Amino acid sequence: MTHPDAAFPDPRMGEPFLLTPGPLTTAFSVKEAMLKDWGSWDGDFRAMTKALCDRLVALAGDTKDEFACVPMQGSGSFAVEAMLGSMVPRDGKVLVLANGAYGLRAAETLRVMGRAHALIDKGDYLPPRGDEVGRALDADPAITHVIAIHCETSSGILNPVAEIAEAVASRGRKLLVDSMSAFGAVDLDVNRIPYEAMVSSANKCIEGVPGFGFVIARKSALEAARGNAHSLSLDVHAQWAAMVRTGQWRFTPPTHVVAAFMEALRLHAAEGGVAGRGARYARNRDVMVAGMRDLGFETLLADRWLSPIIVTFFNPAHPNFVFARFYDLMKAKGFIIYPGKLTVVDSFRIGCIGRMDERVMGRVVAAAAEALAEMGVDSAAPPAAAIAERAKLAA
Amino acid sequence: MTHPDAAFPDPRMGEPFLLTPGPLTTAFSVKEAMLKDWGSWDGDFRAMTKALCDRLVALAGDTKDEFACVPMQGSGSFAVEAMLGSMVPRDGKVLVLANGAYGLRAAETLRVMGRAHALIDKGDYLPPRGDEVGRALDADPAITHVIAIHCETSSGILNPVAEIAEAVASRGRKLLVDSMSAFGAVDLDVNRIPYEAMVSSANKCIEGVPGFGFVIARKSALEAARGNAHSLSLDVHAQWAAMVRTGQWRFTPPTHVVAAFMEALRLHAAEGGVAGRGARYARNRDVMVAGMRDLGFETLLADRWLSPIIVTFFNPAHPNFVFARFYDLMKAKGFIIYPGKLTVVDSFRIGCIGRMDERVMGRVVAAAAEALAEMGVDSAAPPAAAIAERAKLAA
Ligand SMILES: Cc1ncc(COP(=O)(O)O)c(C=O)c1O
Ligand SMILES: Cc1ncc(COP(=O)(O)O)c(C=O)c1O
Repeated sequence: MTHPDAAFPDPRMGEPFLLTPGPLTTAFSVKEAMLKDWGSWDGDFRAMTKALCDRLVALAGDTKDEFACVPMQGSGSFAVEAMLGSMVPRDGKVLVLANGAYGLRAAETLRVMGRAHALIDKGDYLPPRGDEVGRALDADPAITHVIAIHCETSSGILNPVAEIAEAVASRGRKLLVDSMSAFGAVDLDVNRIPYEAMVSSANKCIEGVPGFGFVIARKSALEAARGNAHSLSLDVHAQWAAMVRTGQWRFTPPTHVVAAFMEALRLHAAEGGVAGRGARYARNRDVMVAGMRDLGFETLLADRWLSPIIVTFFNPAHPNFVFARFYDLMKAKGFIIYPGKLTVVDSFRIGCIGRMDERVMGRVVAAAAEALAEMGVDSAAPPAAAIAERAKLAA
Repeated sequence: MTHPDAAFPDPRMGEPFLLTPGPLTTAFSVKEAMLKDWGSWDGDFRAMTKALCDRLVALAGDTKDEFACVPMQGSGSFAVEAMLGSMVPRDGKVLVLANGAYGLRAAETLRVMGRAHALIDKGDYLPPRGDEVGRALDADPAITHVIAIHCETSSGILNPVAEIAEAVASRGRKLLVDSMSAFGAVDLDVNRIPYEAMVSSANKCIEGVPGFGFVIARKSALEAARGNAHSLSLDVHAQWAAMVRTGQWRFTPPTHVVAAFMEALRLHAAEGGVAGRGARYARNRDVMVAGMRDLGFETLLADRWLSPIIVTFFNPAHPNFVFARFYDLMKAKGFIIYPGKLTVVDSFRIGCIGRMDERVMGRVVAAAAEALAEMGVDSAAPPAAAIAERAKLAA
């Protein structure tokens, strides 16, 4: 066993593993925590909400009681929208750093809300760098906030948030971080990476089930956020103020999902918190990537940019390779993989997060080998166009 | 047994019954359905989403394929906001019919979104009637939409939506219905009560767990809703269009909550659909109200206005009666009750919905009797002010 918990991976799971970036495979005990109904007004549930927020603030590294956690019903995108709509004043301007679908979604969110914004769009995966962020801020003093995507899940790249945070802070602007798919497994300590607010959700690296997201923000920023929001439901200030006053979520919380998350937090702590969780995911990635490369698959990204969250592989050039069939064969072998999101070349993704370890990842590689054989694909090498594409970043 | 399902009420439930209007007590099998992880992109989950929508549209009584169901992540308030923001054009004007907290919340939602609206505010519970709605519409031709609350859960009153729908339709305006706490147990058949869109959520009369709501709307209205929304996440048109195109929720769905809802829908059908569910709730209410009245408690509303959803009782005038203590005593006996929401007199509420039957309601009454005795309250009669208040509607 590579993990202290004897029930890991849980033998009761007869279902396929979800090699997807959330929803993901959760521990059986996380799901079992949902076998009880909770009154959302009741003191027991209020105590649970408080414990949840306290634990998340601690995970963010806040030791000075400067931050608060505000959970928000809905999916992660709802929480991103709530953060943008609430933390940015109506007359603010946001610089969006995009290198994939989630960066572009943040820009689209601002557009729909009618908030001023500028966009650095690096295409499918090239990372926004600190120096270009600095230049953009110098050129446009109207910019008040910058939003960065921590792990851009659409390619799996781990963006250089530390250098971005430095560029933003040194110019007196405020950083917002979408750490949806990274928080809990990749360092985002407020003491090392100064930010105004960040957002993540229940069903990513904490390994809960989907149903809510959460914003962790400077209390001073939460206070200043009053009246900013474009929406009653997605108002982070109002949710926070109601929680401080009553201990309750302002509107009905997803009680069972919250209970599951408490168990997920317990397992996260038992595994050694962010460091322990991140180490397991890194081993998952390393075993999986090495095995896939042995089969001839190639990753979009050079090792230095690979996150321990999800990895993009190029589709093999071989004419017998059809993703839909590969997907079905992998599913029949017990593994649900994920389509790619690159616009230029065809790709697929395999997630490293969720309740699984490197032994499971070894079986993923074996399943991929079998699937290739069944499809009659004798080489997983990508087309030349893919290699040319990749050279853009390797260079 | 009064119910065909042998496991009803489920003996595995050692927990308190939630006599609250959602989250509520669900069947054990509903919670058990959450013991599996689902990939939200996978075909199995897409099929589940389609079955869910088809079943809800059928429950609305649509036989001409004129309506579609659009589930929306978040709590019920998120779905109300999504309906208002999406179905009302930016230059539309909404008449809000309020007689309690949820009507007022609809008005507040419109205010935050910056949409024109007028308000008929009947106070704590007096019902808006068809004739006054007609007069308001005649007086203001700018009004394009009316929103009515089906069961105003803050008092428990069942508002006269049929006469309101008639007044709205005959003047060529469009009706939106917040049927959060009534849909699935109280008739809201589109053929009898014409509406443009209605909204409800997973954790009310269908007896699922909380985590999403749904809008059921005329397809013509959904088509026309493109570009109306103030929010990326809460855009009903965009969610609908994405589902039609891909079979998927636009953003990560609360997969486990959805799976639980499918089991809840199965139990709902097995019980005889809206009629069967409504009949059980009516029996729950009748047994509970009769028993509470025997103890001397008085209801806010005369029988004709009592919903089978939740009932408001006046706090006894007796000096020994303290709601917080009553709540704790009831909880210790296995029943979680709900505080009142009246502004004028003190009250509490007891819900009739959820996985329980009249035998459970008999035990609720017995528990209330014991709690009164333990508090040293020998009369549950309300203060004269409460009776005077009630006379306003009885008259
Ligand atoms: C970086 C990032 N941002 C935002 C989201 C959106 O989250 P959701 O799908 O829960 O709306 C995701 C989802 O994977 C993500 O990875
Ligand atoms: C009539 C009505 N509307 C809206 C809501 C709000 O729903 P939620 O608490 O899920 O946001 C409720 C909740 O009970 C309700 O009863």
